[in-house]
Amino acid sequence: MESATAPAIILVEPQLGENIGAAARAMLNCGLDDLRLVSPRDGWPSDTARSASAGADLVIDGARVFASLADAVADLSYILATTARVRDMVKPVLSVDRAMDEAWTRTRQGGRAGILFGRERSGLTNDEVSLSNAAVTFPVNPAFSSLNIAQAVLLMAWEWRKRTMAPPPDRVVSADSPPARQEDIHHLFRHFEDSLEEGGFFHPPEKRPHMERNLRNLLLRADLTEQDVRTLHGVIVSLTRLRARNRL
Amino acid sequence: MESATAPAIILVEPQLGENIGAAARAMLNCGLDDLRLVSPRDGWPSDTARSASAGADLVIDGARVFASLADAVADLSYILATTARVRDMVKPVLSVDRAMDEAWTRTRQGGRAGILFGRERSGLTNDEVSLSNAAVTFPVNPAFSSLNIAQAVLLMAWEWRKRTMAPPPDRVVSADSPPARQEDIHHLFRHFEDSLEEGGFFHPPEKRPHMERNLRNLLLRADLTEQDVRTLHGVIVSLTRLRARNRL
Repeated sequence: MESATAPAIILVEPQLGENIGAAARAMLNCGLDDLRLVSPRDGWPSDTARSASAGADLVIDGARVFASLADAVADLSYILATTARVRDMVKPVLSVDRAMDEAWTRTRQGGRAGILFGRERSGLTNDEVSLSNAAVTFPVNPAFSSLNIAQAVLLMAWEWRKRTMAPPPDRVVSADSPPARQEDIHHLFRHFEDSLEEGGFFHPPEKRPHMERNLRNLLLRADLTEQDVRTLHGVIVSLTRLRARNRL
Repeated sequence: MESATAPAIILVEPQLGENIGAAARAMLNCGLDDLRLVSPRDGWPSDTARSASAGADLVIDGARVFASLADAVADLSYILATTARVRDMVKPVLSVDRAMDEAWTRTRQGGRAGILFGRERSGLTNDEVSLSNAAVTFPVNPAFSSLNIAQAVLLMAWEWRKRTMAPPPDRVVSADSPPARQEDIHHLFRHFEDSLEEGGFFHPPEKRPHMERNLRNLLLRADLTEQDVRTLHGVIVSLTRLRARNRL
């Protein structure tokens, strides 16, 4: 099961139940379910947290409370400390991407990661950061860097989830009609270009190849389906109908 | 200035001021500041939104209200629609990474992106999605996928910020004309649809909305440049020319 190896989220002395609940919601959104609380100010369980979790009962019910950070991380092998800054310490400071790559690699080697989040106002102490393998800082707007705990949890959980998912296909088109074959697209080009020629579109004539290429490129960028090709034939017929009729 | 080219965030008929404020906070955290509201339920300005923004006054004060989605995206060139699913439409469905790569590439080519977020309960309508170049879905936990608006805004804004801080992805499209603005694309739609209406294309009439959506989706998939839009106006004029002339 995925969540058995997903990182644990450890909130150190969280003050507000709303934040614990919102963090639980963000975790479950991304498939994480191991929430650990170090000395939550208002005790545990918390109705406020449950309500703010918007249905993430699985995480709220499974949350565990610890008296010390050391106890909370005892079974984990790789600890990341989220912090705005690292002062007076020799400690690797990783980008979020790098940090989650490290966590992912270690998990695949049989380890288990945990991510520390500090108090709402004051973050983590130097002692707490010193219990981590690496610090992580968020490259947010320096002029407005007040990420709240749930936002920070969401970003870390999101980066984890992206790593657990198979790379998504580049481009998935939702269509009930199959992609058009080039033969049919070329036939459409001829219908289109012949009709434009009749309408005197290609002027001056020496620019015709360039103009045709532009139109073909435009249509090919649209990833036409078979239905699209039929539709566009109908469009051309419709637009030229009265013209043809008037010529008869 | 970075924010001059960062994507606009467009909330369509948001219901709760709390969500607008939390979205503004997430935006500013990641250096985005162009917030646009389409018909917010409880009016604007909103004290609730300001309070929930936790100091993101820059975004709240600069937020603009629009009566329609078309007005809200008029000056933008590349539109992403965040949605849980795309039904009955031929529309690229991109991963968040791919979507933000596309937005980033287009911005570097001189365009400007906008990201649509729907109503809290019901999301975006099909008509609204059909005005986008691509849909984006979040690969969240299928068993618990209730991302709220502010979380979704944060994830998109975060992915944007990561791109502004990192080596950019390969440049995909080489265009000598800048990306077309939505206002000009919508004007093209009207020219096109009026001409088709005259030509009797929309038959039976009750299928017109569906047929129009298909055509709009097709054109939006083509990533039209300003030159493309001029060309297509010329195409329509050319295809209908004799018709119009004979009517005079």
